[in-house]
Amino acid sequence: MNWLDQVAWTADGLVPVIAQEKDTGKILMFAWMNREALQLTRDTGHAVYFSRSRNKLWHKGEESGHSQIVHDIRLDCDNDVVLVTVEQQGGIACHTGRHNCFFQQLQADDWVIVEPVIKDPKAIYHE
Amino acid sequence: MNWLDQVAWTADGLVPVIAQEKDTGKILMFAWMNREALQLTRDTGHAVYFSRSRNKLWHKGEESGHSQIVHDIRLDCDNDVVLVTVEQQGGIACHTGRHNCFFQQLQADDWVIVEPVIKDPKAIYHE
Repeated sequence: MNWLDQVAWTADGLVPVIAQEKDTGKILMFAWMNREALQLTRDTGHAVYFSRSRNKLWHKGEESGHSQIVHDIRLDCDNDVVLVTVEQQGGIACHTGRHNCFFQQLQADDWVIVEPVIKDPKAIYHE
Repeated sequence: MNWLDQVAWTADGLVPVIAQEKDTGKILMFAWMNREALQLTRDTGHAVYFSRSRNKLWHKGEESGHSQIVHDIRLDCDNDVVLVTVEQQGGIACHTGRHNCFFQQLQADDWVIVEPVIKDPKAIYHE
């Protein structure tokens, strides 16, 4: 069976993807891939996701320059979650300009922002 | 606003959760929580998920003894993914008896199992 056929795609043809930074082990982001995105990720060595909001392929870094070089692709025990180990270009994975997307920490009864903005998103996306 | 109300729950009232091991940084598993599960996880300090297949709360380790002590709970930039940092009791997070669920690595065109079974699932679950 083709390796892509072994993935247990959702009814929408997607699979959830966790991106982990190679050197730090930090979780950078969580996104989705469709079949074409996963194929391209493997073939090009750069992370390509599927944007559910824009309903199209999303070559990570296409606007920001913050692409991800993929070192390892794994599939979980149920074949329905992918883990990619990546090198984050520019050290910024999050659209807020932070290193990663998991910057809100639960402290008592509040989500507290615990990671700094490295670069103003306006400067990243030239909006 | 209540911290639970800040989570962007899916239409089914769930949120995807990534469990990362505190000391190694390894991704142990990916699962889901509903509101009650997240509340219990926070209140008890032990990971409680929502099993979509069994349609009920799943106190991780209830059968296997492999519970997870929660050290940190984070929410991503879109408020729709949770990351928990945990101490994995017994060193086994996966129902296959492996340390974690991401043991299939893409090598050329094949998913290859690259992590050993630490304990026979039959011995874990007494089936």
